[in-house]
Amino acid sequence: MADYRDQLKIVKKTLNIQRYYESVGGVMSWDFWNDLPIQSRPYMNDVGNFIKAEAQKHLLDDETKKAVNFFRDFDLTTLEDDYQRGAVQNLTRRYDKATKVPIELSIEISNFCRDSQMFWQDCNKKSDWQAFKPNVQKMFDLKSRVAEAINPDAPSYDVLVNEVDVGMSTDRIQKLFAQLKDGIVDILGKVQDKHADIDTSPLKVLPPMEVRRELAHKAALAVGFDFEKGTSGIMMHPMCGTTGPRDARPNTNYDFDLFGTISMMHECGHGMYGYSSNDQAVEWGLWGGLMGGFHESQSRFTENIIGKSRQFWQHLYPTFQQAVPELRQYDLDAFHKAIIKAQPSLRRVTADELTYNLHLIIRFELEKAYFDGKIKVEQLEELWNDKYEEYMGIRPPNAREGVLQDVHWSSGHVGYFQSYTLGDLYGAQLRAKLLGDIPDAYVHVANGNVAVMNDWLIKKVRQFGMTYTPNDLIVRATGEELDAKYCIAYLKEKYLG
Amino acid sequence: MADYRDQLKIVKKTLNIQRYYESVGGVMSWDFWNDLPIQSRPYMNDVGNFIKAEAQKHLLDDETKKAVNFFRDFDLTTLEDDYQRGAVQNLTRRYDKATKVPIELSIEISNFCRDSQMFWQDCNKKSDWQAFKPNVQKMFDLKSRVAEAINPDAPSYDVLVNEVDVGMSTDRIQKLFAQLKDGIVDILGKVQDKHADIDTSPLKVLPPMEVRRELAHKAALAVGFDFEKGTSGIMMHPMCGTTGPRDARPNTNYDFDLFGTISMMHECGHGMYGYSSNDQAVEWGLWGGLMGGFHESQSRFTENIIGKSRQFWQHLYPTFQQAVPELRQYDLDAFHKAIIKAQPSLRRVTADELTYNLHLIIRFELEKAYFDGKIKVEQLEELWNDKYEEYMGIRPPNAREGVLQDVHWSSGHVGYFQSYTLGDLYGAQLRAKLLGDIPDAYVHVANGNVAVMNDWLIKKVRQFGMTYTPNDLIVRATGEELDAKYCIAYLKEKYLG
Repeated sequence: MADYRDQLKIVKKTLNIQRYYESVGGVMSWDFWNDLPIQSRPYMNDVGNFIKAEAQKHLLDDETKKAVNFFRDFDLTTLEDDYQRGAVQNLTRRYDKATKVPIELSIEISNFCRDSQMFWQDCNKKSDWQAFKPNVQKMFDLKSRVAEAINPDAPSYDVLVNEVDVGMSTDRIQKLFAQLKDGIVDILGKVQDKHADIDTSPLKVLPPMEVRRELAHKAALAVGFDFEKGTSGIMMHPMCGTTGPRDARPNTNYDFDLFGTISMMHECGHGMYGYSSNDQAVEWGLWGGLMGGFHESQSRFTENIIGKSRQFWQHLYPTFQQAVPELRQYDLDAFHKAIIKAQPSLRRVTADELTYNLHLIIRFELEKAYFDGKIKVEQLEELWNDKYEEYMGIRPPNAREGVLQDVHWSSGHVGYFQSYTLGDLYGAQLRAKLLGDIPDAYVHVANGNVAVMNDWLIKKVRQFGMTYTPNDLIVRATGEELDAKYCIAYLKEKYLG
Repeated sequence: MADYRDQLKIVKKTLNIQRYYESVGGVMSWDFWNDLPIQSRPYMNDVGNFIKAEAQKHLLDDETKKAVNFFRDFDLTTLEDDYQRGAVQNLTRRYDKATKVPIELSIEISNFCRDSQMFWQDCNKKSDWQAFKPNVQKMFDLKSRVAEAINPDAPSYDVLVNEVDVGMSTDRIQKLFAQLKDGIVDILGKVQDKHADIDTSPLKVLPPMEVRRELAHKAALAVGFDFEKGTSGIMMHPMCGTTGPRDARPNTNYDFDLFGTISMMHECGHGMYGYSSNDQAVEWGLWGGLMGGFHESQSRFTENIIGKSRQFWQHLYPTFQQAVPELRQYDLDAFHKAIIKAQPSLRRVTADELTYNLHLIIRFELEKAYFDGKIKVEQLEELWNDKYEEYMGIRPPNAREGVLQDVHWSSGHVGYFQSYTLGDLYGAQLRAKLLGDIPDAYVHVANGNVAVMNDWLIKKVRQFGMTYTPNDLIVRATGEELDAKYCIAYLKEKYLG
């Protein structure tokens, strides 16, 4: 009988090696988007695939197999701590997935994602859904094969969603979303007319690129991002990778959305979650944060609960006014109203905080309908437009403003959209608990001290990395399972309060 | 008896996998210098070491061992072509080195190089040789252990030099250098007084950073660099890595040396050699160019034989004058004279073309004396200064301008300095042959067509990557072995003609 401590050592080593390979992939991906010469792409893709295959070989070797199987019959509650348990569970999930999804399929998908993202950029610019549609079909086919490989007995969409938001069923999501949607529609009905007159010109100022970058950088610092543990770049579609335990890389472009400031804050939220794991989580290869809803909870918390609060701008707005003379004509109230103005709109990434989740609910419903076999890719554009008309009373004039706006269906993020909304639900529940613990937290924020919120989030959420499941983590942090009522209450307070 | 074709396949596969690992290392190194957050350095170093160990594991596995040993008893002249022969020889050299130099030592050196380079930057800024000296001692000790491991029976310095310039003995180098030195001293004696009055102010103009970057970029394009196969960055010490068969990355800083233009052209020469291997060389994992003298021949050719020719600036100088108003007061003659002005100086990287190799000969002599046991690290600063006084009549006022000026003894490039001078010898010999084949080549350059020279170099040198040994390559390209007379003749023509 093998000593469990020896097997634990193997778990730790194997998981860390998997993370090493992921870090190599992360650096290569950063390089791909920021520096890689165009003629080097096919070769570097080969290199990346070689590395992926090596990682898979390590993951499926006899030693790992033995360790994983050893712990299947082991009472995990007898292990010393949650990190050991988390590592065993995390490695087991990886191992099981790797035994089920052939490496050839994974590589086919990652090759396709790279090409398709480039193609999406072109199609997006040209607003050419007809050209891009076959790529969506192929991506959905590939994802169906993944779902089938992982669990042929479950509905595909449940499997895909569960790969992102572990332990979450589409039934539960539907119920949460239905409750949230009612709440949003109710609030929107009450404020839409009042908000219609709010002038959003302050968000449309476009100072010289140098100033935009400097202010986005200052906003990143203001939400607490530490550039000793991160670096930022420029990408058409904002995103943030975590490349190592102390290495997060928020990217944005500086063209929309208060010239990139808002999306920079969002990505910094991902980044701070990514680089804040405690030493034990790092030691056990569990650094970086839970995928899906919990990651989005930290980005959306930073973007909205902090970054769209009046108190946050009370501190930062003078800096912006100093750097951008056009802003001096708008006082703090006018500026903050512009930032939170509720208004049905076509683009998800620039949507206001209130209507934002309607965008996600539309996407979730469309993906679910497709994978449940109720609609075809052919119908996506029209159904997309119909839903926008139904939920928000506006219809996209073209694919660029409609079905073609997100990178997700080209980057392989299928079964992902629900995460943003789950993120808002987790975030609002965390906020309620935080304000229970620290009633004057926003007073600190108004004084430029966001650390009071970040420290609480580190203590309750961020430090644990991937140690817990999402459900365990929200229960540990707030004492109860996920409930949409906190988000509705928060939105009511912000929009009706 | 194994079929040789099966063994060849293994050679090809193994060599390509080694190159994959090198490319991963190359991207990580680029990232380290350009983007990596400071707190991520220790972790990424671990990742890099893991990747190095994996590469070594592949290189030393049973399959490779069998293939390498198979070809030891095989008549390589019966193979189909030079690429197959080159691949077998290249892999055998790698395998033999890996069996001799323990991976722990290689990793210790690469860890030390990273730390020591950072430390060198600090010491260089502070001109603090006392602080840095122990690092030089440690680097030399590590390199002695490498030499000892590779060949305990040969003089250490011969072993180290031979690792960089394959097939080159220090005896032969000494003879070539003695001849060259006499030639340089002779020419310098004749022109020094005449050149003393040349005004070098045109090189000291320092336009805004944006303009500097733009002009360095234009100079890169003017020497023929293709940014579809490369990307450039900023580093304190100019360098160029080749990260893939079509992926070279010249870096410079924009502070000295015609605000980075000259060193950018130098690095672009490395880059063009790096990315110009033909498809067969790529297929067989032989892309990128021969280390040492041949690589420097291409960079120095680009920098000097093209980039410091009057004809080159005849075409490019108006662009510079347009972008930098201060240059308009100097005509082409004044500008070109400033660029080639011969003048004893303290800094290698900004030295003129004539005196440049005296700097290298000094370094070569000091390294050789150290590894032959004739001097100690303790004496390096003083001996360095003495030699500058002896060869050039000037004495460094501090370590920053003297013994501490090069990154090499911190980056692990010990036994490397001779390569620059060998590069000038190869380059001048190639130039003589090129002008024999295309007598009006410089007329084309004056018309902005450097391709006529680059194409010749691609045909004769660059396309072959690592297929041949340096000696075979110079004989193939020019019909004879390396001879210093061409370089002396070229310098005479440029400075006395």
